[in-house]
Amino acid sequence: MSSSIGKLFRLTTFGESHGLAMGGVIDGCPSGFEIDFKQIQEFLNKRRPGSSAIYSERNESDQVEFLSGILDGVTLGSPIGFIIKNSDQKIKDYSSCRDVFRPSHSDYTYESKYGIRDYKGGGRSSARETVNWVVAGAIATQILSFKKIYIYSYVSAVGDIILDQHYSKLDLNNIYNNNVRCPSQKTAFLMEDLISTCKQKGDTIGGQVSTIIKGLPVGLGEPVFNKLNSGLAKAIVGINACRGIEFGSGFTGSSRKGSEENDQFFVDSNSIKVKTNNSGGIQGGISNGQEVFFKSAFKPVSSIMQKQSTVNNKLQQVDLMPAGRHDPCVVPRAVPIVSALTAIIVLDYYLLSKTTKLSDL
Amino acid sequence: MSSSIGKLFRLTTFGESHGLAMGGVIDGCPSGFEIDFKQIQEFLNKRRPGSSAIYSERNESDQVEFLSGILDGVTLGSPIGFIIKNSDQKIKDYSSCRDVFRPSHSDYTYESKYGIRDYKGGGRSSARETVNWVVAGAIATQILSFKKIYIYSYVSAVGDIILDQHYSKLDLNNIYNNNVRCPSQKTAFLMEDLISTCKQKGDTIGGQVSTIIKGLPVGLGEPVFNKLNSGLAKAIVGINACRGIEFGSGFTGSSRKGSEENDQFFVDSNSIKVKTNNSGGIQGGISNGQEVFFKSAFKPVSSIMQKQSTVNNKLQQVDLMPAGRHDPCVVPRAVPIVSALTAIIVLDYYLLSKTTKLSDL
Amino acid sequence: MSSSIGKLFRLTTFGESHGLAMGGVIDGCPSGFEIDFKQIQEFLNKRRPGSSAIYSERNESDQVEFLSGILDGVTLGSPIGFIIKNSDQKIKDYSSCRDVFRPSHSDYTYESKYGIRDYKGGGRSSARETVNWVVAGAIATQILSFKKIYIYSYVSAVGDIILDQHYSKLDLNNIYNNNVRCPSQKTAFLMEDLISTCKQKGDTIGGQVSTIIKGLPVGLGEPVFNKLNSGLAKAIVGINACRGIEFGSGFTGSSRKGSEENDQFFVDSNSIKVKTNNSGGIQGGISNGQEVFFKSAFKPVSSIMQKQSTVNNKLQQVDLMPAGRHDPCVVPRAVPIVSALTAIIVLDYYLLSKTTKLSDL
Amino acid sequence: MSSSIGKLFRLTTFGESHGLAMGGVIDGCPSGFEIDFKQIQEFLNKRRPGSSAIYSERNESDQVEFLSGILDGVTLGSPIGFIIKNSDQKIKDYSSCRDVFRPSHSDYTYESKYGIRDYKGGGRSSARETVNWVVAGAIATQILSFKKIYIYSYVSAVGDIILDQHYSKLDLNNIYNNNVRCPSQKTAFLMEDLISTCKQKGDTIGGQVSTIIKGLPVGLGEPVFNKLNSGLAKAIVGINACRGIEFGSGFTGSSRKGSEENDQFFVDSNSIKVKTNNSGGIQGGISNGQEVFFKSAFKPVSSIMQKQSTVNNKLQQVDLMPAGRHDPCVVPRAVPIVSALTAIIVLDYYLLSKTTKLSDL
Repeated sequence: MSSSIGKLFRLTTFGESHGLAMGGVIDGCPSGFEIDFKQIQEFLNKRRPGSSAIYSERNESDQVEFLSGILDGVTLGSPIGFIIKNSDQKIKDYSSCRDVFRPSHSDYTYESKYGIRDYKGGGRSSARETVNWVVAGAIATQILSFKKIYIYSYVSAVGDIILDQHYSKLDLNNIYNNNVRCPSQKTAFLMEDLISTCKQKGDTIGGQVSTIIKGLPVGLGEPVFNKLNSGLAKAIVGINACRGIEFGSGFTGSSRKGSEENDQFFVDSNSIKVKTNNSGGIQGGISNGQEVFFKSAFKPVSSIMQKQSTVNNKLQQVDLMPAGRHDPCVVPRAVPIVSALTAIIVLDYYLLSKTTKLSDL
Repeated sequence: MSSSIGKLFRLTTFGESHGLAMGGVIDGCPSGFEIDFKQIQEFLNKRRPGSSAIYSERNESDQVEFLSGILDGVTLGSPIGFIIKNSDQKIKDYSSCRDVFRPSHSDYTYESKYGIRDYKGGGRSSARETVNWVVAGAIATQILSFKKIYIYSYVSAVGDIILDQHYSKLDLNNIYNNNVRCPSQKTAFLMEDLISTCKQKGDTIGGQVSTIIKGLPVGLGEPVFNKLNSGLAKAIVGINACRGIEFGSGFTGSSRKGSEENDQFFVDSNSIKVKTNNSGGIQGGISNGQEVFFKSAFKPVSSIMQKQSTVNNKLQQVDLMPAGRHDPCVVPRAVPIVSALTAIIVLDYYLLSKTTKLSDL
Repeated sequence: MSSSIGKLFRLTTFGESHGLAMGGVIDGCPSGFEIDFKQIQEFLNKRRPGSSAIYSERNESDQVEFLSGILDGVTLGSPIGFIIKNSDQKIKDYSSCRDVFRPSHSDYTYESKYGIRDYKGGGRSSARETVNWVVAGAIATQILSFKKIYIYSYVSAVGDIILDQHYSKLDLNNIYNNNVRCPSQKTAFLMEDLISTCKQKGDTIGGQVSTIIKGLPVGLGEPVFNKLNSGLAKAIVGINACRGIEFGSGFTGSSRKGSEENDQFFVDSNSIKVKTNNSGGIQGGISNGQEVFFKSAFKPVSSIMQKQSTVNNKLQQVDLMPAGRHDPCVVPRAVPIVSALTAIIVLDYYLLSKTTKLSDL
Repeated sequence: MSSSIGKLFRLTTFGESHGLAMGGVIDGCPSGFEIDFKQIQEFLNKRRPGSSAIYSERNESDQVEFLSGILDGVTLGSPIGFIIKNSDQKIKDYSSCRDVFRPSHSDYTYESKYGIRDYKGGGRSSARETVNWVVAGAIATQILSFKKIYIYSYVSAVGDIILDQHYSKLDLNNIYNNNVRCPSQKTAFLMEDLISTCKQKGDTIGGQVSTIIKGLPVGLGEPVFNKLNSGLAKAIVGINACRGIEFGSGFTGSSRKGSEENDQFFVDSNSIKVKTNNSGGIQGGISNGQEVFFKSAFKPVSSIMQKQSTVNNKLQQVDLMPAGRHDPCVVPRAVPIVSALTAIIVLDYYLLSKTTKLSDL
């Protein structure tokens, strides 16, 4: 059950980092939607490394091939099968990992759990898998756009450099105008500088990604065990290197008083709005028509270009020498990944919300 | 699908705050386990309000009645049905809420989503629902204890009072020795004092709950979309008033470097251990045999004893006068709830992990 | 996962034959529907034994208590919890079954699978469980009726007495005008006579139930693994004593030629109809707007009032003496059960069908 | 949710008859199993048409390409992605079907449900999809064989030619010794003759497939809504052209008496056996350690080589001229398909059964 996400709009994936191909099946995609393939490829390109000095040097063209579910560009309602071939594999880079458990990687846990492990590039645990999410997320994003629902993710922190402006003060169209994917050009420079410094030292650095969903109608979310925040949390926390998620005022808000935190309702042009949005657009697990806002934390990439002490599968202490091609900071590439997963989840909840009220049926 | 949690060990619940009863069905509970009913009631008592001045004054005895699935105290493997009758309902307290949307409550989202709303005590959105989780969680806890897996949750922050000791320095047997459920008696006093002050002002205050899972074997977690952290995040973030979750070093760790964050492996008495546990016991979504550690953030309770401005369902601006019985701070009562949900999730993953390797089958 | 049925309209049940109560949770029931409680009780009464000499003598009042999900008779969209207390338990009737495996019962398989067994009245394997299905089925039936979808089940065979008229020639309003639930009064007499004869000899007799769904729109069914026939087959075959199901011309049609079996389309009043309905209203797993028709086969009740040779749990050969109260023929009581399950499945597919086309969203 | 089958061993598929490729993802395959790829191809070859005059003339090589989940021939426990390219497509054969609804096909139901239809070769509704099932079924069969569980399917009827010997009297190793896949060579001749006669007349003929599962341990099946028979019925009834299923003595047994039908237990070499197997190896939805036996009915193929009257999507009456390449009788090719689905279901239940008893955990 582990390789599927979503209930009605449902993605099932496969693929190891250095296997023949990545791929998946998108089931439950509504029929009759005309897909913009160019936009899908653009979304994939945003996830691709290799486009800047601050990224990993692995260079995959990430050309997606759709094998089913689409007729003359229009969705049939049948499952959309797709593959993305792996081409730029440098397997010998990983020969040193065959028997060694890299620190803070999943080598040890995979080998223990399954009794066998594809050591090449992390196998199934590699972030290469996220290319599958972006394919499905790109389609979900297009359908949501058709419904006037828009998702914006951006880097809001790299190391101790924090973008502390409220999202309403940011021009979210600027996100992809720099390599870091931070809508403030000024902060982006500082972040890029910090990443470069880390890379030069063979080190890596963590960061945070913020996400805003605009245009979401009231009523998405399925209490009590499938709330909108629950569904988003499950997906986002599952991203490689993600360590946490918070909605609205989050951890900061947990130190405040009710009189400070409560979002007062008021009426504006015949619709209900809130004076503040500390709830992050979700109340009781259901979207309230405001902007949904959440932040996710990413640890620094575990693959550092420094010698480390670790253990091999014969329980011997060994030195791990640096190898492979890795990002010095994962958050710029995490931006489209967070957006893609968010789109998958939101579209799924959108479909679920259509079967709630008798009067809608 | 919204009222069920878990895949193999699966809880399905029902109940509104001021309805006749809460209850649920626990499906997939392993057969042949002798239940300690006294321990279940003790677990329920920890969740009950009314036992201290810092709690809500609603007084429910929370006597659970088991209706099936158990023969002479031993689980049959068939579904365990149970109910907890609601008795101390003061419905008239809520008559003012019938048409009014309380700020930061789910009145507005429920009414919009369903076109109808049980206004009495929040109906389905009330934290009264958590009594169901505790019943299932208490059983899961007992089964996990039988397997030497133990869960400890405690309050680690109330407002700006933060327990900043590492969990390894705390005596986790002290958690329930005070009303706040903080293992440091000294910090507990400060927290209780802050809560009392808030209560006197008719205000509420947020806080944080930390959780440690000890004795977890290596190998729990189902990549890539059902990682152990994903499952825990989905459950915990769905708790009423929960705003976020972080694993291991979490948001703090996201500002650090790889060379600082990586958990170095070493060998101790023929088993693999880590020098630090910044990963919080989970790598690649799978438990690594270390202590699993996560923290969750809770907003201040939305029901404050102060006049607030809000909106009714005729889109009129109205004043909301305080009513009902509410906790000034939710986190002490959230402690057993977080533990209970954690137990449900961990037992479910434990069962799932038994079907992975051919050599185990 | 075994105690739940349905994906969007989802029933989860519990209860052993001689436990305190049966019950369940109906999740995903559309909000805003006004329930007719009297009709639910009438549906339950149809399933009750005790109302005729051809039935078991166990006498349960089968009063359902709804505990949640309904406000002033209207569904809230939250889960509907319910219980039906067991009252007329004669446990001592079953003391002889404690260690003995009754032939063609599930005593042996339950004890082997779970290592423990509630021997009283068959425990979880008893047809008493079907009372839960009727509660949910009665609600589903009402919602379907609101949508002009009607389900008719009736006895079409008892032993070698077969009702061989096509359903279109029968007056389906007559079904409950006799104890056997056969719409032909003449055939009903013969069937009742046969059942009485069997009962007098301490024997039992099998039979068949036919079902017609009228008013079903085109488009219900989710290919390829969740076809409408697949969903119905899964549910119906799971009924106690059910041994098979066939759609349309079924097994008989499997001996025919394509030129005989094909259902020719024609146009009538601007809609597409078929000259024959050998497909039973389903093509490619999707309803085609015609009447859905299927037949299910039920073995004779295994509890006969004759001495039988069998085995106990010490692997000793023993004689089993007749005990308990049992129906001589299960099919008359199976009629409302088949209808109820059919209603649950059809409503579930109805909801699923609402999220297929982009133009509907 | 429609394109996935199984809970723990789970297949998700995609592909249209004349699209680029068929394919799927097998999730939850136990790790550490060494796959025999040659056996998989042999299984696929059994499903292939083109190997005899009684089959369709479409000629696909059906070479499966595995893209993930396997390292050096051994399963990794990660999802197994695979594709089978479509090559022998004669799309122009189907141009006449673009606007026309073929009788007893799913053209009309697909177009109504989705608002769009891939008319080429039936698109998603084509039996070409079953190639995916055979890939997963072949792997499941190998794992089951390793556990000494064996599945035998064979043709037991073509038209009115019925193989009326009990399965225990048949040499099941003879099944694939003739084109019809009937273990009695004598009956196979008669069947082949009948199929040839039908083909010459441009007609088609229905039939039945019987299945025996040997070596199944006691305890597979998850009551009450996921019984072993329920799971098998759901899968088998979903096969293209399948119209019904019966277990054990099935419809015939439904005309008998309890005293005739009951399967008497006896003890043989310290294990419990039954004198007859009218239950078909399943009691209370759980395997009882005897041979599981069921029969499935298949209608005649709808594509006949005769002129037929039908309707197009402009609601006009039109003549349909024969086109495409089709089997005159589907049951010989259904044999490996039934076996494959049975293997998928049985392996899934096998895994589920491993988490039932506390003493097994």
